[in-house]
Amino acid sequence: MHRELPDGFRDQVADIVGPEACKDDPATRMGYARDLWPLLTLRMREGRAEAGPQLVAWPSTEQQVADLVALAHERSVPLVPYGGGAGVCGGAMPSRGGLVLDVKRLNRTLSLDPRAGVIDVESGVIGETLERQLAARGYTLGHFPSSILCSTVGGFLAARSAGQCSSLYGKIEDMALGLRVYTPGMGWVETGQYSQQAGAMDWSQVFIGSEGTLGVITRSLLRVHPQPQARLLRGMKFDSVEAGLDAFRRIMQADLRPAVLRLYDPLDTVFAMSLTHGASDDDGGEASPLKRFTRKLKHRLKPDQLPLGTVLKGAPAINWAARMASSCLGVIGFEGESGMVSQADEESLAIIEDAGGEDLGREPGERWYESRYHISFQLPKILQKDAFADTIEVAATWDRVPRLYQEVREAMSPHAVVLAHFSHAYPEGCSIYFSISAPAVELDDAEAVYHRIWDAAMEASLRVGGTVTHHHGTGMLKKHYSAREHGNGLKLYRAFKERCDPGGICNPDKLYPSEVAR
Amino acid sequence: MHRELPDGFRDQVADIVGPEACKDDPATRMGYARDLWPLLTLRMREGRAEAGPQLVAWPSTEQQVADLVALAHERSVPLVPYGGGAGVCGGAMPSRGGLVLDVKRLNRTLSLDPRAGVIDVESGVIGETLERQLAARGYTLGHFPSSILCSTVGGFLAARSAGQCSSLYGKIEDMALGLRVYTPGMGWVETGQYSQQAGAMDWSQVFIGSEGTLGVITRSLLRVHPQPQARLLRGMKFDSVEAGLDAFRRIMQADLRPAVLRLYDPLDTVFAMSLTHGASDDDGGEASPLKRFTRKLKHRLKPDQLPLGTVLKGAPAINWAARMASSCLGVIGFEGESGMVSQADEESLAIIEDAGGEDLGREPGERWYESRYHISFQLPKILQKDAFADTIEVAATWDRVPRLYQEVREAMSPHAVVLAHFSHAYPEGCSIYFSISAPAVELDDAEAVYHRIWDAAMEASLRVGGTVTHHHGTGMLKKHYSAREHGNGLKLYRAFKERCDPGGICNPDKLYPSEVAR
Repeated sequence: MHRELPDGFRDQVADIVGPEACKDDPATRMGYARDLWPLLTLRMREGRAEAGPQLVAWPSTEQQVADLVALAHERSVPLVPYGGGAGVCGGAMPSRGGLVLDVKRLNRTLSLDPRAGVIDVESGVIGETLERQLAARGYTLGHFPSSILCSTVGGFLAARSAGQCSSLYGKIEDMALGLRVYTPGMGWVETGQYSQQAGAMDWSQVFIGSEGTLGVITRSLLRVHPQPQARLLRGMKFDSVEAGLDAFRRIMQADLRPAVLRLYDPLDTVFAMSLTHGASDDDGGEASPLKRFTRKLKHRLKPDQLPLGTVLKGAPAINWAARMASSCLGVIGFEGESGMVSQADEESLAIIEDAGGEDLGREPGERWYESRYHISFQLPKILQKDAFADTIEVAATWDRVPRLYQEVREAMSPHAVVLAHFSHAYPEGCSIYFSISAPAVELDDAEAVYHRIWDAAMEASLRVGGTVTHHHGTGMLKKHYSAREHGNGLKLYRAFKERCDPGGICNPDKLYPSEVAR
Repeated sequence: MHRELPDGFRDQVADIVGPEACKDDPATRMGYARDLWPLLTLRMREGRAEAGPQLVAWPSTEQQVADLVALAHERSVPLVPYGGGAGVCGGAMPSRGGLVLDVKRLNRTLSLDPRAGVIDVESGVIGETLERQLAARGYTLGHFPSSILCSTVGGFLAARSAGQCSSLYGKIEDMALGLRVYTPGMGWVETGQYSQQAGAMDWSQVFIGSEGTLGVITRSLLRVHPQPQARLLRGMKFDSVEAGLDAFRRIMQADLRPAVLRLYDPLDTVFAMSLTHGASDDDGGEASPLKRFTRKLKHRLKPDQLPLGTVLKGAPAINWAARMASSCLGVIGFEGESGMVSQADEESLAIIEDAGGEDLGREPGERWYESRYHISFQLPKILQKDAFADTIEVAATWDRVPRLYQEVREAMSPHAVVLAHFSHAYPEGCSIYFSISAPAVELDDAEAVYHRIWDAAMEASLRVGGTVTHHHGTGMLKKHYSAREHGNGLKLYRAFKERCDPGGICNPDKLYPSEVAR
């Protein structure tokens, strides 16, 4: 059990936010005991719930946030900032109990300056809500994480999030022009209104990605864009991962700026095609390249005939067999001014074909676009079937990407079915998104397998010189590996942490192990 | 006079770098007494030289840098990192004497990974040298400050520099994927190999722009690009600054990504045209829009007939008269894949014409390109003629840019002839680059005028909500204004400075006033 809250703390919190805006009943505490970290879902399924926080508060003003943080600091109560709870690494897990500070009532969009294209927004706004507000006025933030329906602007910033169109619009750190943060050690700090236009340091960049361990981000200035005039999506097929990566690298380095660039490895190609190309594929008619590709895949692998149990028990065999298959689906998408979009599509198609890719027309791209938020919601289903699933995202420069893919995949292959796709491309590299699934017969055994898989993946990435995360954050899950990746850069974090959070109350056990962080 | 160096310090430095790589003769000390801050040049002209450093060292390895910094820290000797000395704000001025650490022998390009498009480069490499090395292999950094012939990569990073093509390639902070820095307080720190692909904080962003006050950047990983296939430049004419700014904003927000985007105000238009459109304009022949524009300007203002003294003494009148003139020259340039360049040019031209601009064809753009590094070298000439000149660059979001222009210009107008152009555009705003010139009859009087002009400009920018610098850095010159601009963000700097440089030896008196910085 966690340490009890100090005497009178609950009343002090109620004085700040009002008695109706703080709760400590068992259902509330259980509801805030975890985020979407699959390990915690796995435990939950077996009836092993986490202890949760002792108290949850819903401040509705920035001043209330400041008062809560100052109080928790004064009384040494662990404080966990909480947005949508959509994280998958335990970043919002109250591992030491204490107070959860849910920012969802801090949800005002304070202004949109239409000339500058800048919004001033509070941290509790849900991504999809913000997109709708912006769309009504002809704008977009351009940030589309698959969690957009249940994640907040504060969460985006805290986790250094990337959306599906990051190749065009950038990651959240590229959109942030200034933050307001309350830190226990230094009180309010503002990181500047123009951090991307101004001189001197850009302090926004040390709060973005700090996962609530330095204070609470209450408000931000974010760059928005006019809604694109045109959007064009296209599918393609490559005979190997390497050929696809070669095309992607050349497209990025030619600065053609696709909004979407995704390459599925052979096994993930099967999964992606079965998800987005259901019954309607064998409708007779003339055989387009896409239809031929779909039929060939189905003929070869018949994925819809494989029961999940069989699939997972045969993980090593499936991973091995998948090496035989070599067809990779790619999706590319452009958005912006019509003429630019057509031109970029034309130039990228030339590169794709030169790299040995085959054009599959617009349909696979459009299908991906329609179902772009669906896939993430498939994972919980697997968790209900004596199995577990998780996703592992790493990144590297182009020269290391093929080896990173091979080695991480091979490291996990003995334990799980491994699918991968390449996305979030930069001129200098891209991320790899592995989806894994493994049988979970008994909890202790499943947990051991779970950790073995993660350990194998992280060790492989560090060995090859990749990152241990790209856009899911570190949370509880990757903190030991994160510390190794960042090496002596940790000195910088420690120096800063000591001043921002001298009592160590801010989201303990996240980002780095506590013995390293202080 | 500055405090003497401690006993034996010179020998200790010689032990580290070798006796031939450190000097304390008067000529060396005078050579390193200043950078290109016009105020110091003005004083120099009157025979009032600065005291300079007591010692200059030229380390040739990163380890020698570390040893020098550690020694200076141990013995409490002020340490000024020195690149090309091309700064214009006194950022490399050894205001308290001590040791100048010149990084120009630390000039190796350690590797270029052609797949990733990343270079690993030491801080002392001169910008133009690096561009030539890259060009020989088909690449470019895309960073073209007008000081490129005499400034270093370390200087770019320390000052958060912007090049002439920053709208396309970004500023130096957008190119930096990781830094190696030696700090007195924490020793070596590395900010990550993939700071733009990885999770967690991006610590590169607090050393970039820190102007040598936190340690010495010895090495960096920078993103490079293939040499562009095509380059297209075009001139245009607007009837007002406002119309030009409207077009520029729309071009940036439509994501047409020009590499160059410059708009000259009426007076700067005269200057720019006289510099780049000399004798060859009145060669008879058919009157193109460009020729008509040039002739009209010359007819109206006859800039080549005005002696400098007359011009400067009549500054208020000239500034007033310039408000009558309203024609503004604009230059736009695209580079990249040929098809994309043509398409972007076509779409931007439609926006320009819709905003009331007139196409002047390619010639003005091409002339600008040919003379793009010349203008900066005109200023010292003015300094030899009983006058002084300086440049003042500020920035703001689009909604504030017109007012920023008006108010800063009006604030300086009683004292100096004020020219301005708008450049370094972002989706959300741009910078304004003021060139001023005023008579300098007697030194004390000239210095007083100089400070009055700067004070008027900085106060106006802060009042309107602009920045006090864009890409020249802060140095000695703007440190008081910089502290006001950054407000409570200074707490972050202080916390960090205390750990990076506990003895306060690193480039004292720069960035913020010393009483604020500690």
